[in-house]
Amino acid sequence: MAMPKATQAFPRQEFLRRLAAVKAEMERREISALVVIVPANLTYLTGYTSKSGYVPQALIVTLKDEEPTFITRKMDAAAAIHQMFVDRTRVLGYPEDLIANPAKDGYDAIIDHLLDVGCGQSTVGVEAQMLSGQTLEKFKTRAPAAKIKDFGNAISWIRGIKSDLEIGVMREAAAIADAGMRRAIEVVRPSVTEADASAEIIATLIRGANGKAGTDITGFYLCASPRTSTCHIPWTEDRFQAGSQVNIELAGVRYGYTSALMRTISIGKPSDVVRRLHDGEVAGLEAALAVAKPGATCGEVASAFNTALGKHGFTKESRCGYAIGIDWTEPTSSFKVGDPTVLKPNMTFHLMLGNWVDEDLGYAISETLRITENGVETFSALPRELFQV
Amino acid sequence: MAMPKATQAFPRQEFLRRLAAVKAEMERREISALVVIVPANLTYLTGYTSKSGYVPQALIVTLKDEEPTFITRKMDAAAAIHQMFVDRTRVLGYPEDLIANPAKDGYDAIIDHLLDVGCGQSTVGVEAQMLSGQTLEKFKTRAPAAKIKDFGNAISWIRGIKSDLEIGVMREAAAIADAGMRRAIEVVRPSVTEADASAEIIATLIRGANGKAGTDITGFYLCASPRTSTCHIPWTEDRFQAGSQVNIELAGVRYGYTSALMRTISIGKPSDVVRRLHDGEVAGLEAALAVAKPGATCGEVASAFNTALGKHGFTKESRCGYAIGIDWTEPTSSFKVGDPTVLKPNMTFHLMLGNWVDEDLGYAISETLRITENGVETFSALPRELFQV
Repeated sequence: MAMPKATQAFPRQEFLRRLAAVKAEMERREISALVVIVPANLTYLTGYTSKSGYVPQALIVTLKDEEPTFITRKMDAAAAIHQMFVDRTRVLGYPEDLIANPAKDGYDAIIDHLLDVGCGQSTVGVEAQMLSGQTLEKFKTRAPAAKIKDFGNAISWIRGIKSDLEIGVMREAAAIADAGMRRAIEVVRPSVTEADASAEIIATLIRGANGKAGTDITGFYLCASPRTSTCHIPWTEDRFQAGSQVNIELAGVRYGYTSALMRTISIGKPSDVVRRLHDGEVAGLEAALAVAKPGATCGEVASAFNTALGKHGFTKESRCGYAIGIDWTEPTSSFKVGDPTVLKPNMTFHLMLGNWVDEDLGYAISETLRITENGVETFSALPRELFQV
Repeated sequence: MAMPKATQAFPRQEFLRRLAAVKAEMERREISALVVIVPANLTYLTGYTSKSGYVPQALIVTLKDEEPTFITRKMDAAAAIHQMFVDRTRVLGYPEDLIANPAKDGYDAIIDHLLDVGCGQSTVGVEAQMLSGQTLEKFKTRAPAAKIKDFGNAISWIRGIKSDLEIGVMREAAAIADAGMRRAIEVVRPSVTEADASAEIIATLIRGANGKAGTDITGFYLCASPRTSTCHIPWTEDRFQAGSQVNIELAGVRYGYTSALMRTISIGKPSDVVRRLHDGEVAGLEAALAVAKPGATCGEVASAFNTALGKHGFTKESRCGYAIGIDWTEPTSSFKVGDPTVLKPNMTFHLMLGNWVDEDLGYAISETLRITENGVETFSALPRELFQV
């Protein structure tokens, strides 16, 4: 009895559309075989979300084949057969003796495959920023007649403009993020530990919303007094107290697609400076949303935010957002002064207004959004409040 | 009001002991400054567990300074000041214009620092396997008179032998793993979704055990029928059914230290073949534990397991364990035939007997263990059962 395919988040045609876009870019760069290793790119091109990237693995996309071929540790091949849209013959498991072997590793199997399928004299694209110098050298040594060419983060740029199907999944993820934040507002109370509150919130993110479960847990940060100036500590064992401020960053995840959300909760009345910072950030958020539309640049969105926030007497040093999609951040465009990226419909961003001003003052609010035909859609239904509990 | 230091999991003396071991290895290799970037190594040397490794960051260890210096994105510096045992002046935040900047990145700030502190003509150690070819080239270009030398995974080898303090923390983590697995045995029932069960189990892993919270969530896998041949899928939206088999791998985490645990749950009576596989695996597990003691090699442990399992008519292709500690796997020794690593007291391993035999047959059991003065201590108090619910 063969294992059935997993429930697919997208139809085959959607994956072929994505592959066609990647192949067009390969043709433009005169690359005939592409070695994809960035996990988010694997998810994008095949639907694969299993966590096997702790060892070498690669998806080989060629111009001549409709479906790509995945090479992974044999132990993980079954998950790829189960999850990927491709035919099972397109998943190749490499043997266990390449694991924890100082002489050879999974990249040897990947290079063997390239040589086997006749790419030894081709131009082969790689995601060089993800390869160690040692591995890059191995490609050059073992395939000396091939031309190894950096594909950069071209796939991330292709991922930047979502299909309506992807947008639908991101909306589902956003509803889960909202449910998680609503649970936070219920459970953040004096004498509750940060860990116990996080347990409740994360359980909600997994149970999901509207009958759609969260399919993974990713970056979750709960930074409460006295560490509201920090941004990436998951939680501690401390107990909330009357007067505590709690900055939360979380996300809903569906099939790898991430919708992020930040809000700040105050146990009791927030201090005046936090209230003023909140007002400035919301003004900045609304100013940013007002200019975000097709034709505007990412830099213009950042400038609008900065100007509005500045009128309230604050500045934010870090960029105020970035492209978001599979596995959270896409390493492409940012809401950052001077970023020339021109907004297009169905680009999605995390308008991330976390502001860690100094050691005594930090605050978090954000929206995950989509550029529409003539403006912007924010996915969250949560009010833009500094929640007082 | 300056932010206080976080509750430290270890005293200053423990961190200085670890640093002394690293510095001794640096001296042996004639390295005067070491650039540490592996997140688990940062945790080991400073107590830092904040999740800022999504951008370049490095701990600089020099022979001449007692405390190391950490260079990170400015936004993340507060968390380092809060969590690291070092003086606050030892944390340097680099400016935001190095983020999402195609021309320069955080490694430029790290190299600037090395040049500033007079290491421009020194021998500088790096963890080369973690550096892209492009970044390694940047070190060589921007510090041309320095000698850049690969430190390999020498710190991981030093981490391999734990102090009694570290063992204490791993026992706390193991109690959390047990609590999580006990919760799994309670909630895996027909018609419950995998996601809802996972929510309960993960919430338990965060709430912790014996008044000690889980301080993070790491690898969690729940692979149930019909995908018991897969090993690294977190969970799905499917509902368990009468007759379902559920393979679970989870871990308790305390301050980065991970104790992993695998068990298999059957809803109703397991099939004969699964029962026979369970019996073989437990026999193998006990055979492995019987030979694991100081002076034996990792390879001998694997051979003992394989022989005992073979007598039951099964084989396991993948290695049957690996060194474990901070952030789960240590990339050093494995319970793998031929691994020459000689066991020493306070080495810790995940004796990982997950066995994905074919598409219809997979099974999971494991123990996290410590080598004692004359044998082995397993951390889990859970029986080695195929749990029937």
